[in-house]
Amino acid sequence: MQWNNKLTALLNISYPIIQAPMLGITTPEMVAAISNSGGLGSLPVGNIDPAHVRTLIQQTRALTSKPFAVNVFTYDIPIAPDHSSFDAMQAHLQHIYSRSGLGVPEINLKTLQLFSYKDILPVLLEEKISIVSFTFGVPDVKSLAQLKEENIIMIGTATSIEEAVYLEHQGMHVIVAQGMEAGGHRGTFLAGTFPQIGTMALVPQVVDRVSVPVIAAGGIMDGRGVAAALMLGAQGVQPGSAFLLTHESMATDAHKAAIAAATDTTTRYTRAFSGRWARGLSNTLIAAVEESGLAILPYPYQDALTQPARKASKAQDNPSFVAMWAGQAAGLAKKSMGTAEVFHKLVEGAEQLIPSLKGQ
Amino acid sequence: MQWNNKLTALLNISYPIIQAPMLGITTPEMVAAISNSGGLGSLPVGNIDPAHVRTLIQQTRALTSKPFAVNVFTYDIPIAPDHSSFDAMQAHLQHIYSRSGLGVPEINLKTLQLFSYKDILPVLLEEKISIVSFTFGVPDVKSLAQLKEENIIMIGTATSIEEAVYLEHQGMHVIVAQGMEAGGHRGTFLAGTFPQIGTMALVPQVVDRVSVPVIAAGGIMDGRGVAAALMLGAQGVQPGSAFLLTHESMATDAHKAAIAAATDTTTRYTRAFSGRWARGLSNTLIAAVEESGLAILPYPYQDALTQPARKASKAQDNPSFVAMWAGQAAGLAKKSMGTAEVFHKLVEGAEQLIPSLKGQ
Repeated sequence: MQWNNKLTALLNISYPIIQAPMLGITTPEMVAAISNSGGLGSLPVGNIDPAHVRTLIQQTRALTSKPFAVNVFTYDIPIAPDHSSFDAMQAHLQHIYSRSGLGVPEINLKTLQLFSYKDILPVLLEEKISIVSFTFGVPDVKSLAQLKEENIIMIGTATSIEEAVYLEHQGMHVIVAQGMEAGGHRGTFLAGTFPQIGTMALVPQVVDRVSVPVIAAGGIMDGRGVAAALMLGAQGVQPGSAFLLTHESMATDAHKAAIAAATDTTTRYTRAFSGRWARGLSNTLIAAVEESGLAILPYPYQDALTQPARKASKAQDNPSFVAMWAGQAAGLAKKSMGTAEVFHKLVEGAEQLIPSLKGQ
Repeated sequence: MQWNNKLTALLNISYPIIQAPMLGITTPEMVAAISNSGGLGSLPVGNIDPAHVRTLIQQTRALTSKPFAVNVFTYDIPIAPDHSSFDAMQAHLQHIYSRSGLGVPEINLKTLQLFSYKDILPVLLEEKISIVSFTFGVPDVKSLAQLKEENIIMIGTATSIEEAVYLEHQGMHVIVAQGMEAGGHRGTFLAGTFPQIGTMALVPQVVDRVSVPVIAAGGIMDGRGVAAALMLGAQGVQPGSAFLLTHESMATDAHKAAIAAATDTTTRYTRAFSGRWARGLSNTLIAAVEESGLAILPYPYQDALTQPARKASKAQDNPSFVAMWAGQAAGLAKKSMGTAEVFHKLVEGAEQLIPSLKGQ
């Protein structure tokens, strides 16, 4: 077993270690540190204003000449929720904020500006991005055709065998198999039940069903996880929480302290922050939304509603209203260090367990 | 990395591969086949009549002179549920059975005979069993002292870091870290939330927190899973579903067919069969109990209530009321073969991935 495989050749990287896109955590500095170390950094642009997406890409480019991926949330903006459910959720949140002494500006549904991947893809094409990863499924037929025309390498995210098979059929060149251990948004996109498959079960089943390279995600925090994922048949790994405590991470000090103190049972799935299922550490906002009995708004409306409080409490380093995403093994990250140092530890840890990785 | 380690030395086995105890599936023939192959068979005795436990042990002994473990469910029989909730559940089940044309004898709560580990442990001591594994925690202080006095090797089951630490403190010599992928009963025993930690996240965190050998369970179906678990720091593995389709398995033909057709999303956790959380394939009984809105009785009362229907539908090879336990990767078992053959495939598959396992 060697580091070099179909995936490293396809992505033009030295190590098949992809930094998971973590919106709100990942900085251009983190992306560049990973790519400069021989892995693949991922710049998450989610629902960010396209003009700012361009800035982030240019900032990253200024820090690395190596390839990196841009991660896109593949959703269409749904019809706005009716005013009464929007207002009810907003009134409840404002009540909670004021009880905590946090002043948060109100959102006006009528003037709310929302962006989808359709606003962002043109920027990626103009900026000649060569690798795009998708969360929540694939773009529409027209966008897919454009991306293929430009020979852009596409990475899809699957949370079940069925989703993996679908992604390959849609032309994804690489598939991330995201186990339920993973922190942050779960990439589930096919209708039906919410699949909660552990990485150990998901990866070999996906590997057996698709012919494109598979990247394992979920629970991978150190060389042990990297080596285990490779044994399961993954060609690469996508750790996220492993980079939460780095100097290049935007996580607040309170979030970092909570991660260092986390155990396996302190994370949970919630829709409270964004309207989509994501794994993170419990806090006041999650409890307030879930215990309210109010209908959680669809993504990205719920996300837009909680955004101002996240920003305000981030500025105060108050963990109560920040989305403290974390995977089930995040507690293995005990101290803060540079992104490049974490990356090298992943490589060296795996090489100690699988000496043949080093090659000749 | 070699097969021989502290765990194989302690258990006096050649390969640190422990067949998971699967009550209702595992036969003396399966246990013996594993132990004769150099692994550790596990004879599950759950809530079985102690007289029959003795028979099962003797049947196993007649087939192997190698060590095997006996697996005990460590629960005290709780106060009987009130008659009204017992009768309501029974009436509902009888209604469902008769709608399916299945004649099932009624259970009388007053004359119900239930056994706990306290009835079973004396048999194990008399039969000079040398290895006992526990599900649902540890025995009481007096039983623990007796087991220690007899130098019996004790294996505990943990579903979280906290449970693993507790088990080591109670004197367990080995700890099974059971990821949420695992089929059958989840061994959770500490009060609080129901921990659903994936194997990839659970194993390294447990390994870092206890000093006794750790056995990984959950999602391990072939050599890839064995190798991955060893990379995570486990000294051994405990596959279960990998043996469901064997000739020595008591699984019904319908259960076996459902396993061969299973995907990652076809299993679920349910309390419908026994009153405790367990992972299996959906069927009529699970749906009928869960959709009824009736209170599920505590273990082992719910178990006793569903027992006659399970027996009757097993005899007819009707999957509707059988507990079809299965892990999230059970679908990787595609064809029926001998237990010893599955075992050898696990060994050879891991050796292909980790050549140093073979030693000189």
